[in-house]
Amino acid sequence: MKRFAVIIAGCGVYDGAEIHETVLTLLAIERHNGSYQLFAPDINQAHVINHLDGKEMNETRNVLIESSRIARGQIKPLTLFKSEEFDALVFPGGFGVAKNLCDYAFKGAECIVHPQVSKAVQRMHHERKPIGAMCIAPVLITRLLAPVKVTIGDDEVTSKHIGEMGGEHIHTVATQVIIDEQNNVFTTPCYMLNSSITEIADGCDNLITEMTKKMK
Amino acid sequence: MKRFAVIIAGCGVYDGAEIHETVLTLLAIERHNGSYQLFAPDINQAHVINHLDGKEMNETRNVLIESSRIARGQIKPLTLFKSEEFDALVFPGGFGVAKNLCDYAFKGAECIVHPQVSKAVQRMHHERKPIGAMCIAPVLITRLLAPVKVTIGDDEVTSKHIGEMGGEHIHTVATQVIIDEQNNVFTTPCYMLNSSITEIADGCDNLITEMTKKMK
Repeated sequence: MKRFAVIIAGCGVYDGAEIHETVLTLLAIERHNGSYQLFAPDINQAHVINHLDGKEMNETRNVLIESSRIARGQIKPLTLFKSEEFDALVFPGGFGVAKNLCDYAFKGAECIVHPQVSKAVQRMHHERKPIGAMCIAPVLITRLLAPVKVTIGDDEVTSKHIGEMGGEHIHTVATQVIIDEQNNVFTTPCYMLNSSITEIADGCDNLITEMTKKMK
Repeated sequence: MKRFAVIIAGCGVYDGAEIHETVLTLLAIERHNGSYQLFAPDINQAHVINHLDGKEMNETRNVLIESSRIARGQIKPLTLFKSEEFDALVFPGGFGVAKNLCDYAFKGAECIVHPQVSKAVQRMHHERKPIGAMCIAPVLITRLLAPVKVTIGDDEVTSKHIGEMGGEHIHTVATQVIIDEQNNVFTTPCYMLNSSITEIADGCDNLITEMTKKMK
């Protein structure tokens, strides 16, 4: 049974983890006979967004506590992540990845990745284990592992930033997976494209399928 | 294309909508070529639970605003629900159903259903359209439509309450669907049993399959 660590960034597309992508990643892992453990950093969110009107709310929320909603309580603080306990690492998307796990949403190509996230990625990469990233999460992977080949779909600004960070961006359509064989990095656009929930399910499944194949 | 209205109760199993059940219901509807519109009441949650430690937090959150996280903003206040615009109605589970949509979690068999929810169910029932309910949501359906045949899995206390409200409870295993042909009511236990996410996906899919068959 392949053991996946899944790092998430809150609970909600505009300030946390993309909920559909996270749930459908867990489902895909289980359907491929893998096991999973969710992790999130125990830090405050960059901000809280009202998902109905898109406006900032005058509230403070914690990334780990909000992430635990998607996890049904079964989640660990990222400080407890140990690379030797896992065969693969996955990042579902959502703006929280670009706001809480790194500051890409605010700094673009000059972004800095949170040290706990950076450490987890570097460890897995050093051990040559597969790393998957969906939606906007490939910007974080590029910042840490460039030169690397990734996709975030077809967004011009983000793909330009990926180039500036030393990555190579490949344009893709929904559900397609880009594999960087050398870095063992797997990416798929999910909601960076205007996708349906069926396409998200298929994209997550395709990503986990490719990662699982690589571990055989 | 069959049009499903999906009523949810927040965002998180302990004080709102069960997230996995909601996402996997939307996926099942789309996989069966249906369309969906999410609704939630514009009211405060009964309380806010920290999903990491299970304790109440000193916060106030709104059911519609929190529900909009799962909906990615695409949700309407329940006051805008019009039965003539839909072919079927579904309630995913989560404690929010028993705390925000009715007060079953606090009052048991003496519970009262929120008038907006009651109105939506009664209208659809009057028009003989299929109504689906997962997890704990069948208690709400029983309160409104008894005598009715439902399942919440095998929990003794809840099945006793269903009997007290005039319902008939059928014990089930994961992914099984109980159909009350006369009332056009479809129920499945989901996380009322200790299920895996794969079983939740299959349970949601089975429920939507049976409802869709009935509409042909």
